[in-house]
Amino acid sequence: MKIQSVAAELSLKRSVDSGTDEQRMAVRNIIQGVRSDGDAALLAYTKQFDKAQLDHLKVTELEIEEAYNEFPEEMIEVIRQAADNIYTFHEKQLRETWTYTDSSGTILGQKMTPLDSVGVYVPGGTAAYPSSVLMNVLPAKVAGVKRIVMTSPPGADGCLPAGVLVAAKICGVQEIYKVGGAQAIAALAYGTESIEPVDKITGPGNIFVALAKREVFGTVDIDMIAGPSEIVVLADDSARPAEIAADLLSQAEHDTRASSVLVTPSQKLAEETAKEVESQLNDLPRASIARESIENYGAIYVTKDMKEAIDVVNGLAPEHLEVMTENAMDVVKDIRHAGAIFVGRFSSEPIGDYFAGPNHVLPTNGTARFSSPLNVDDFMKKSSLIIYSEQSFNENFKKIAAFARLEGLEAHARAVEIRKA
Amino acid sequence: MKIQSVAAELSLKRSVDSGTDEQRMAVRNIIQGVRSDGDAALLAYTKQFDKAQLDHLKVTELEIEEAYNEFPEEMIEVIRQAADNIYTFHEKQLRETWTYTDSSGTILGQKMTPLDSVGVYVPGGTAAYPSSVLMNVLPAKVAGVKRIVMTSPPGADGCLPAGVLVAAKICGVQEIYKVGGAQAIAALAYGTESIEPVDKITGPGNIFVALAKREVFGTVDIDMIAGPSEIVVLADDSARPAEIAADLLSQAEHDTRASSVLVTPSQKLAEETAKEVESQLNDLPRASIARESIENYGAIYVTKDMKEAIDVVNGLAPEHLEVMTENAMDVVKDIRHAGAIFVGRFSSEPIGDYFAGPNHVLPTNGTARFSSPLNVDDFMKKSSLIIYSEQSFNENFKKIAAFARLEGLEAHARAVEIRKA
Repeated sequence: MKIQSVAAELSLKRSVDSGTDEQRMAVRNIIQGVRSDGDAALLAYTKQFDKAQLDHLKVTELEIEEAYNEFPEEMIEVIRQAADNIYTFHEKQLRETWTYTDSSGTILGQKMTPLDSVGVYVPGGTAAYPSSVLMNVLPAKVAGVKRIVMTSPPGADGCLPAGVLVAAKICGVQEIYKVGGAQAIAALAYGTESIEPVDKITGPGNIFVALAKREVFGTVDIDMIAGPSEIVVLADDSARPAEIAADLLSQAEHDTRASSVLVTPSQKLAEETAKEVESQLNDLPRASIARESIENYGAIYVTKDMKEAIDVVNGLAPEHLEVMTENAMDVVKDIRHAGAIFVGRFSSEPIGDYFAGPNHVLPTNGTARFSSPLNVDDFMKKSSLIIYSEQSFNENFKKIAAFARLEGLEAHARAVEIRKA
Repeated sequence: MKIQSVAAELSLKRSVDSGTDEQRMAVRNIIQGVRSDGDAALLAYTKQFDKAQLDHLKVTELEIEEAYNEFPEEMIEVIRQAADNIYTFHEKQLRETWTYTDSSGTILGQKMTPLDSVGVYVPGGTAAYPSSVLMNVLPAKVAGVKRIVMTSPPGADGCLPAGVLVAAKICGVQEIYKVGGAQAIAALAYGTESIEPVDKITGPGNIFVALAKREVFGTVDIDMIAGPSEIVVLADDSARPAEIAADLLSQAEHDTRASSVLVTPSQKLAEETAKEVESQLNDLPRASIARESIENYGAIYVTKDMKEAIDVVNGLAPEHLEVMTENAMDVVKDIRHAGAIFVGRFSSEPIGDYFAGPNHVLPTNGTARFSSPLNVDDFMKKSSLIIYSEQSFNENFKKIAAFARLEGLEAHARAVEIRKA
């Protein structure tokens, strides 16, 4: 692993994959196909892309029960506990409607309402993670969303992975469709004979899914478009190189484009961690993925002091940040940009991926500068409340009419003035 | 104004304008131009589109001072009071960092941090509204955003409207650039020699601005892409037809594509309101705009009872909703989708446009189903905090490792296990 002092041009940023013109065109054609031909288009695309010959899209109750009954009992228990932790954390995010009354009797406020319906996209193949189901569905449940729909591409055998169905059952999702790719996003946004449209689509996916989400954004809401995953470890000599290396590698095994970075003022820690990465790497089942990721997007930055190290972290705005330093909570105070912050040696990042409670859907690729983890607010909306009193009206109507006329909107001014006593 | 019973196919929805292929291409070329040529491109586009020959983009302190000093003093006072009201309302939205500790000593939480920088786009010409400046800038101020930048296209004389500069000064915005259109959005997203990039862009604009925002979304955050404005009035016989008509017309004068709708169980109210709309319409300075809007997108729906009327309102999910009924607060409880809800006869919608305090940037075109008024959360981001205790670790590491292996991620499992005592 490369050790370097802080470069002038410092960035995690891999280019955002915005697709080729061919991919964009293909996605627009698929969306158009689903809008005109509905279920028939979904079945045809599923045959074409997933090699699955289906005659209906909806997963049956029996399929869910079978998956659940054949699943290892102890893993069901683990998923249940994770679900409990995730639910408990997200409950703290839930906000109530509030109002206040001013001295003239005017009431102003903010009414909180859950979305009516949400579609959760679950990618297929090896990326069909039960933990994704928990992390996308449970905040929506906490928010109070009544209709939660899942879609996922089937295998060539026409089935969805058992783990995904088990996680759906644990979360109480009953409406699941075997459809993936841009066609699933189109169905969720516009509806077909068998799939009612939803108000918002969340969940990760490949480039076609990402392009389709970008395309339907506005007709429905979407979550952020996720990039490859990344971790930054901020550590000093109080941290253990073997543990840092293991955490860096847990990120690197995700994807050849994942990024793992250590930022430290300690040359010694840098060198020992680099050695540990080498020695742990070879022995991993996904060693070739992890190695490519480390070589292309891994780095160890040695800074002149902790202050510079913190600046580097804020510059990178990482998805996951681990802080393993003396006085870690003081360091955390100065962190401005990070999706999730793991503090101390017992807060290894995979604990957050599965179990601790906070969401693992996090802003990637530097977008922690302006984005948040998936959270309950993403599944609710606010409505402003304005209950103007007669006294406020009498005191202010002339000013309001004057403001309207300043902007050249006479009918606005008259709508106010017509109410004067 | 047409009076009709509730149609099967009920919708406010005007098609979202997603631009022609030529417009999309033009916007992509402009963005590319700004990315390669920076300020030179901005000056060239400003000459081409705004007919203004500038040699620098930044508004000088002197220009702001002159606009302020020449502005009517009583209007400055009105804008100041509006700003105070808006600031006070948005302060109630501000949320603090929170944490909690579980019985095993693990601390979980949510850290709140303002964005570093925000760009506010202010449209040019007659749509250059001082109220837009207040509504976009003040929530960012409340959030604690340190750098707030404004851009707006200059007139052919190279100047920005005085009202916009005055509102900017009242809000404490000093960094203002004379640039509009897709080129302004590109500059805010990617930066040029004289404009540092920002983390988020808000504010309304024409189709080129909307397409450019959609294009840069992901590199920076954006607010929703706004459609034409709309109002729904939900009323019974306790309401006054003349006041309803005035409010409907205040919406209709905005734009020929604006939509004004009355929903009522009262045939009498429907008829009287239709008459009032006719008689008030002719006398408006913007009568031709208002008339076209009312003819194309105006409607009066007569329902069989209040329950059906509420269902109609929820189906429309209006940007602005006025409730002028008996027991209005009971009615409001059943409203699920609306950007802002105005209750009672003294809560005429223009009061919310300018003065009451809640934001006037609201979800349009049915997007109140899933979107919220612009608010302080839009200018902050959350970071999850995970401080796992040794006790939690010892109790749970085996489960977490098992979950990781279930998903085929061995390095995740080992990162946890390497910490066991």
